[in-house]
Formats: sequence, structure tokens, C-alpha cells
Amino acid sequence: MASAAEDRRFGPQRRVTLAAPLALDGGQQLAPVTIAYETYGRLAPARDNVVWICHALTGDQHVASVHPRTGKPGWWSRLVGEGRPIDPARHFIVCANVLGSCMGSSGPGEAAPDGAPFAMRFPVITIRDMVRAQARLADHLGIGTIAAVVGGSMGGMQVLEWAATYPDRVRAAVVIASAARHSAQNIAFHEVGRQAIMADPKWRGGDYYASADPPAAGLAVARMAAHITYLSEAGLTAKFGRRLQARDTKGFGFDADFQVESYLRHQGISFVDRFDANSYLYITRAMDYFDLAEEHGGWLANAFRRSSTRFCLVSFDTDWLYPTSESRAIVQALNAAGAAASFVELRSPFGHDAFLLDVPELNRLVDGFLRAGGL
Amino acid sequence: MASAAEDRRFGPQRRVTLAAPLALDGGQQLAPVTIAYETYGRLAPARDNVVWICHALTGDQHVASVHPRTGKPGWWSRLVGEGRPIDPARHFIVCANVLGSCMGSSGPGEAAPDGAPFAMRFPVITIRDMVRAQARLADHLGIGTIAAVVGGSMGGMQVLEWAATYPDRVRAAVVIASAARHSAQNIAFHEVGRQAIMADPKWRGGDYYASADPPAAGLAVARMAAHITYLSEAGLTAKFGRRLQARDTKGFGFDADFQVESYLRHQGISFVDRFDANSYLYITRAMDYFDLAEEHGGWLANAFRRSSTRFCLVSFDTDWLYPTSESRAIVQALNAAGAAASFVELRSPFGHDAFLLDVPELNRLVDGFLRAGGL
Repeated sequence: MASAAEDRRFGPQRRVTLAAPLALDGGQQLAPVTIAYETYGRLAPARDNVVWICHALTGDQHVASVHPRTGKPGWWSRLVGEGRPIDPARHFIVCANVLGSCMGSSGPGEAAPDGAPFAMRFPVITIRDMVRAQARLADHLGIGTIAAVVGGSMGGMQVLEWAATYPDRVRAAVVIASAARHSAQNIAFHEVGRQAIMADPKWRGGDYYASADPPAAGLAVARMAAHITYLSEAGLTAKFGRRLQARDTKGFGFDADFQVESYLRHQGISFVDRFDANSYLYITRAMDYFDLAEEHGGWLANAFRRSSTRFCLVSFDTDWLYPTSESRAIVQALNAAGAAASFVELRSPFGHDAFLLDVPELNRLVDGFLRAGGL
Repeated sequence: MASAAEDRRFGPQRRVTLAAPLALDGGQQLAPVTIAYETYGRLAPARDNVVWICHALTGDQHVASVHPRTGKPGWWSRLVGEGRPIDPARHFIVCANVLGSCMGSSGPGEAAPDGAPFAMRFPVITIRDMVRAQARLADHLGIGTIAAVVGGSMGGMQVLEWAATYPDRVRAAVVIASAARHSAQNIAFHEVGRQAIMADPKWRGGDYYASADPPAAGLAVARMAAHITYLSEAGLTAKFGRRLQARDTKGFGFDADFQVESYLRHQGISFVDRFDANSYLYITRAMDYFDLAEEHGGWLANAFRRSSTRFCLVSFDTDWLYPTSESRAIVQALNAAGAAASFVELRSPFGHDAFLLDVPELNRLVDGFLRAGGL
């Protein structure tokens, strides 16, 4: 039957509601806590083959299966899947939609206890809150120790937070193209995006869910601004340069003359079909608030004291959003804390986006690191 | 009298309307052509002491006198003024508001021949069109040869265009923190700004002049995005880091928690009081269209063949909007063309904005270069 075929194609689409409230960093209690997630592979009898994947700002739980809204392959199917470094034939793979997002987990678009969407009544959350919710999911799944927590960008922040908050539950941690705190420039770019959304009259203070007319224009501008930061200057030049879009001469108007304009507009427009504007506000806020050192008395090394987790850090040389210096700072803190850490800067022309793209060296690195840990 | 004192304080506020139409790169004729400008100092009897200053995207003719709307000092009063490298005691200094802008020169906010504002009926213009209009102003002022044309950022683009289009009229050219063409990344950032403006419902297809309710929110977002590109990551970190704004702890809301957010919001809000959204569209378009090599058969060196102009190029090491590599490409073309060129990369923590800030080495450099030419 078509629906069964669809089910397999799209993965299991699991969702669980945890009854006990979650105490948030902001001081509020969130209840109930709903978490949407996907799993791939089978939990080994010894429960020692769990690979927990953390997704980035606009990612989701569909790490290696088709996205139900866009119909596109899972966002990390280059790294996760049959014959890949993270392989359901060997690993029990879990990926949960983060708190505050819009793919089924508790967030501003989900119903509050009064039945109406939370909208801006949803509490401001932190990366640590996201990880605490995931730990609850691990409990629910009967998972004690996780063999490896893996993530890139905001996913890497969650990996660091997992290792810092639950050191006894994390045997290995893979942090790709990430940082232990958001820089002033990163905060600035996020603030531009938030202002673009909140300046859209259709945002209506966040109460747009009943209207079927969300603040698409503002969200598209936010995505366009962010998207530039995901790419390298050299990569943009190589991909588009100053080439014109479907025309031989400049149009002397305000249509998209250049390919790079057309590409950016497409990025903005297609994003609004799959993402919620309020979720964008909440998750960027959580990223801006992230400062792992601050949570540990101002010293990043304190976050990893007595840690027996093995760490693998990866950066990309053209990533200017989370540059290599950010990964180095983490490695220095890990060294100072006496934790086991390996670090590689990979060459790639793709900027920050490289962690999602075809970088064979990244696959080899993750594969080698996991196998060295017996995975 | 108060009004006379005001006049002196604000400079002469000159404005001229040139009757003959201006043939534009886009194929249209613009008529009449109005140019607002300021002058400082006196034209020497030999007419050999003219320093022509070209302003940047959001600059204006008030280079060394108080801005009539903001009440702030002239935008380049660190370089231009009594005792400065460009000194009205020795030089006859001219600065014209560029075509397409909003400080009195012909632009979308000025009246079309039918009496209503041009709005989006204003033709799309180029950097070369801006310079052609300035050459008309020079004619009007009885200026044949210009001793030095000086500009930073988009001002530098005009300087290059002056030298390429009127090689016999430009004895010396000072190009600061600029480029001979806009990169894909530069176009991308401008496109975000344009989309932010055009997504604002108050933009109304550009016809907002009668409403007294311009697309301020969209223009503010455009300015915020652009402003980030004017600053260096290190400069932002040094200035703001992750410091909170007038509070001891995070607010767990969407107010401006961080100083950098508050600063950016202020930049956006204050900009809309002094700038026109349609002008922002037209001038960013002109910058994106700028490619001096393309105008000369694809070879930048062709733009400077047989040039007897002396060139001085300056870049700043932390400028990632117009990085040093862009200035180097110009110097290579000048060398290939056999033109006289000197080039210095200055150290500054301030990114692109350095050309407007207190960089004593820049002053020494410009002073030395002008004096070496007998100015």
C-alpha cells in the first residue's frame, strides 16, 4: 500500500511526550515536554552501540531519511546511512528535533496547555535545555551510556553540552565546525535575522499561526542573511562570481540580474516552506546565549574536568562563521582539563556549509575516530 | 543672527541644475540633472589646487561640515579641514552628492519632470553615470584638471572611474579601501538589504513619499546587515564581546540583551532618519553593477592605458568587505598599464570602517602623497 511505502520512505516519525516537567535555565518549568525523533538501526543487547546525532539551527531529526515536507534526502545522508561512517547496520542512531524547533518537538508552534499555540509564550531556552530534554529521551529509550554524540554547528554546541552536563553518559564526542560560545559577530548576524522577522507586520507579535499567512518575507530575509555566512567568499566567487542569471546583459532594474541574487532569493523563499519564524527566533536566541565557559565559572576547561570522554574536533579552513580558532580554543581547554582530544582542520572551499557537503576526508575522520573507540 | 551662524556652521549647501540631459549607461537620458555639493577653500588663480572628494554609499557632500539632518560633524573631518591633509587653507575642495542619493542631487526622491517624485521611475544608474554627472559639475565650476580625486569604499570606485573615463583631467587619484568590482559576496549582502526594503509593505513599490510613513523597518534591517560587514570580527569582539546591555544577567526574552544587539539596532534606527530607502536600492545596484574591467573589454589594465595619473592605493588588513587582495588586483593592473602606483596596506582593528576613523597613518599617507604632487 502507498501509505506503508510512504512510512518506510519517511522513517518512523517517532514522538514521545514526557510527563515530568523540565526545569529550564531561564527558571521556568516546561510541561509537557514533547520530543520528535528518528532512530535507525537496532540497539545492541549490551546497549553499547548508540550514536546520538545533534542537529543544527535549521536541521531536524530526519538525518538520514527523506524530509516529510521537502521530499529531500536526510540532511546528513553523506555521513549517516548504509555503508557510511555512521551506519544503521552497526549503530543504533538517534536524532531528536531540538526543543524550540518546528518538526514535532515542543516549541512555539506547538500547543500550550491551554490548547492554543505557545507562540511567544514559549519560554526562552538554552542549548543546555535542549540537551537536558534529549537526556530525558535517552532515559525513555532505555539508553544509559552513549557511545558517541556527534554534531556540527549548533549540533556541535549540543555535543559539548552533552559532554559537560552528562560526562558519565558520553564515551565519545565529535564536534564539527562549531564553537564553545557565540562571538559578537555571530550574535550580530542573528540579531539582523530576528529584526527582519519581527519587522514583518505579518509576524503579529508571534501570533500568526491561525492566519495561514506567516511572516514569510521577514523569515526569507533572515535566511538570506544567514546563508551568506554559511558560505565562503571564495566559494561564492567560484560558484557564481558576477555571472548573470538567464540573460546576456544587465537588466538595469531590480530583478535578480546576478546568479548569486537569484540563488539567495531561492534560498530564502524555499526556507519559509519548511521552517517556522518563531522557532527561528527561539533557536538563534539559544545559540547567542551559549557560552559554555560562563556556565562553568568563566573557565572553559572547568566544563571538562575529570571527563573520560574522548573528543574529536574538526574545523574547516574557509569557515568564517565558526573559524578554526574557535575549535582550537576548545582543544586548549580540553588539554588543560586533561581530556583526550584530537583535532583536525580540513581544507574545503565551501565555508561553514562544508560539514553538510561532500568532504570525503570528514567521512574518513569520523569513521576512524568511531572505530578507534570500538564502534 | 542665528540663521547666518547656522549657514556658516552647515556650509554653503550649493545646488546646481544642469540643463543638458545626461546620457546614462542604461540607455536613458536624465534631465534635468541636479547636483548638490559643497566646496571648501578657494580655487587658486591657476586652478591647480582642486581636491575632488567622492563619498561612499551612505555618505554625502557634507564631508567637513555639520550634517544638516543629524547635526553631526562632516563624515571625513578627520582627513579634511583646517590643518588636515586636505586643507581648505591650501586646497579648493569639492564634494558632490552622488546621483541617486537623497541629499539634493537627482535621485528617486526628487521630482520628475511631471512634478511627482521619480520613485522607481528613476533610471538605474552606474558608478560611471555618477562620475559623468560630477564631470558636468566640474565644467560648471570652471574646473578643467583636478589635482587629486580622493575617495574611500564606493568613493574609491568613483575615483577609479574618474581616472579611467577622464584620464586627462585627473592628475592624482587616491583610492582607499575599495575595489574595481563587486564580489559575489558583496552583491549577496546588498541583495539582502534590497530584499529587506522591498519586503516592507510600507515600501509600496517605492511610492511612499506622500505617506510620511517610509519603509523604515526594512531600511533599518538593511543597514544592520550592511553595518556588520563594515566592522571586523576582532573589532566587534574588542568593542562588545558578549557583554550585556545595562543588565547583569540575561533577560531570557527578545529585548537587546547584548551590547552588540543594542548597538546594531541603534545603527538601523538612526540611519532611517537620514537616508531614503529608494536611494539605498539605487546606489547598492550601482555598486553591484560596477566592474571596471568589464567596461574595458574584460582587462582592468585597459582602463588605465596611457594614463599619466599618479595613483595611491590604501587597504586595511582587517577589511573583509574590500580586502587587500582587491587593492592588489588594481595595483597589478596599474603596473601592467605602466601607470604610476603606490600601495600600502595599513593595520587597523576597525575593518572596512577604518577609512572613516582615526587612523593617523592614513592621514600621514594622504598628506605625503598630495604634497609629493605639489599640493
